Amino acid sequence: MHELRKDPLLGRWVAVLNESKTPSEYAVPSEKEPETSCILCAGSETRTPKEITAIREDGKWWARVIPNFRPVFQIEGDLGRTGLGMYDKMNAVGANEIIVETPEHTKQPEDIGVDQVTRVLRLYRERVADLERDPRIRHTLIYKDSGRSAWTSFTHPHSEIAATPVIPKQVKEELDGAKQYFVYKERCIFCDMMREELRFADRVISETRDFVAFSPFAPRFPFEFWMLPKRHSCAFQEITEGETEDLGLILCLMLKKMRSILKETPYSYVLHTAPNRVPRRNHWHTLGEDFHWHIEIIPRLLNSGGFEWGSGCYILTTSPEDASKYLREA
Amino acid sequence: MHELRKDPLLGRWVAVLNESKTPSEYAVPSEKEPETSCILCAGSETRTPKEITAIREDGKWWARVIPNFRPVFQIEGDLGRTGLGMYDKMNAVGANEIIVETPEHTKQPEDIGVDQVTRVLRLYRERVADLERDPRIRHTLIYKDSGRSAWTSFTHPHSEIAATPVIPKQVKEELDGAKQYFVYKERCIFCDMMREELRFADRVISETRDFVAFSPFAPRFPFEFWMLPKRHSCAFQEITEGETEDLGLILCLMLKKMRSILKETPYSYVLHTAPNRVPRRNHWHTLGEDFHWHIEIIPRLLNSGGFEWGSGCYILTTSPEDASKYLREA
Repeated sequence: MHELRKDPLLGRWVAVLNESKTPSEYAVPSEKEPETSCILCAGSETRTPKEITAIREDGKWWARVIPNFRPVFQIEGDLGRTGLGMYDKMNAVGANEIIVETPEHTKQPEDIGVDQVTRVLRLYRERVADLERDPRIRHTLIYKDSGRSAWTSFTHPHSEIAATPVIPKQVKEELDGAKQYFVYKERCIFCDMMREELRFADRVISETRDFVAFSPFAPRFPFEFWMLPKRHSCAFQEITEGETEDLGLILCLMLKKMRSILKETPYSYVLHTAPNRVPRRNHWHTLGEDFHWHIEIIPRLLNSGGFEWGSGCYILTTSPEDASKYLREA
Repeated sequence: MHELRKDPLLGRWVAVLNESKTPSEYAVPSEKEPETSCILCAGSETRTPKEITAIREDGKWWARVIPNFRPVFQIEGDLGRTGLGMYDKMNAVGANEIIVETPEHTKQPEDIGVDQVTRVLRLYRERVADLERDPRIRHTLIYKDSGRSAWTSFTHPHSEIAATPVIPKQVKEELDGAKQYFVYKERCIFCDMMREELRFADRVISETRDFVAFSPFAPRFPFEFWMLPKRHSCAFQEITEGETEDLGLILCLMLKKMRSILKETPYSYVLHTAPNRVPRRNHWHTLGEDFHWHIEIIPRLLNSGGFEWGSGCYILTTSPEDASKYLREA
């Protein structure tokens, strides 16, 4: 079992793997599967861990979920919370899953179309709802890394799930920030932001019946944008089927817009949803009124340097207003 | 004047530059100066902005400080704090300086020796002490990016200074975490960590008269390590000359150790010191008892992906205990 450790200064949990890499192992570029023998392609189903769920239509699968080949967070075991001198650790209990987004290697879901993007979103919803039932799991993060780069193990279109026994620091910060605002204003900060953006419109990129895509006022990265549901809801898994289809529409559109102006730039997105409520009941005074699930997308145009890493401040070399103009007009 | 904007959700200030890059400008790799015409080398002094300070011995300069060629934070102007609907912004007042660490292009200070590393540290001390006098400046960050990579503008050995009118988020988090610990324990968390590390010794890499270098219990990156002064002090500029020389010794040693096992891996380091006290007097109840200046060093072995970026959690592929063993024995 891998180990979770808490940084006593910042309260950040990190995962320490059982088997350490030696310094020289970092020098070797990680092996990418050759395109002819991709383990995630249709036809390789027997070579993956046992399928968790899938969407099957017309006698074939269109998207499927499998356990990660080498999970950091493992589903078996207890939390094992332990003190170690002044430090705290626990077992890396949870789940790591892979969502295979298409049967075909060379097409992204948005190339297949809105229907395919929506199928993937249905799997997201199903998995978050299912993982919530495990009382050891506090939070489920869905994320995607797209583009050939150091941090993706597969080039096949896929996204990933990390279900963790702790609320990750980034999510906790958003929850805390949103709660602070709610305490002061008695309104959801995300709803307020959305209203403000729609009113002034200079950072709005796209709007559908149920969703808004905009560049935030103070993002971290150039061309970063967020997608928010218009209906206030803290938990992604409570999305309706109609909203899921509408989200498929705007996500498909936005991914195409992004590619049309940023070409093959790798990107990542994450879906931030409220922690599982059952174990948090005592702390959840506001019943979800203060948090609002959303998707954040960042193109990987720049690497962070010592300044960003040491300060937590970022330099925007393209203003959010200009970025959203480029994306809007794409 | 560039603009600082505050993310209302996380309280993070980001800098938005006046002139936006177009999408296609990101595709062009940034120009690196050819080694024959480096603007930071000895002999090119007239091509840089006017020198701020320097260390001259034996009729030549050994290290010098100049303003950044294209500063994000500018020394002229007022803070201009303004609301913009629900958002907050201000002018990017402050300072960006470059510390040229050697007259020679191809030698890092540690190649020249402990004396040269110490000269650079003396310049750090002088600049932090000087910038503290400007009441608009709340914090001074010193950082270094070493190695040919996307985020360094120069290949010549140099470090940088960013003096900002706000306390950067990362520093604020450390201050808040340390304060919380102090409120609970009435002891400095850094002093406690250092005692704990020295007692168990499995993460200690090196110890000198005045400093300890160790891998933290829960770092973010493999082979990350910290250097702390044994004497409690919140402000780097209060370092004595004897301590500066001792820091030169351990920093020189650690940089050589790192290079001997990680070869040409790029790295960054940052110096975290307390904010300027004058403007913070009202909030500084503990008179600096709760913060402890230190240097954090991260080798750039891995890029962060969607998981790290979306969760704020990190996967340690080499345990801190193993990393410190490699470094100790190097």
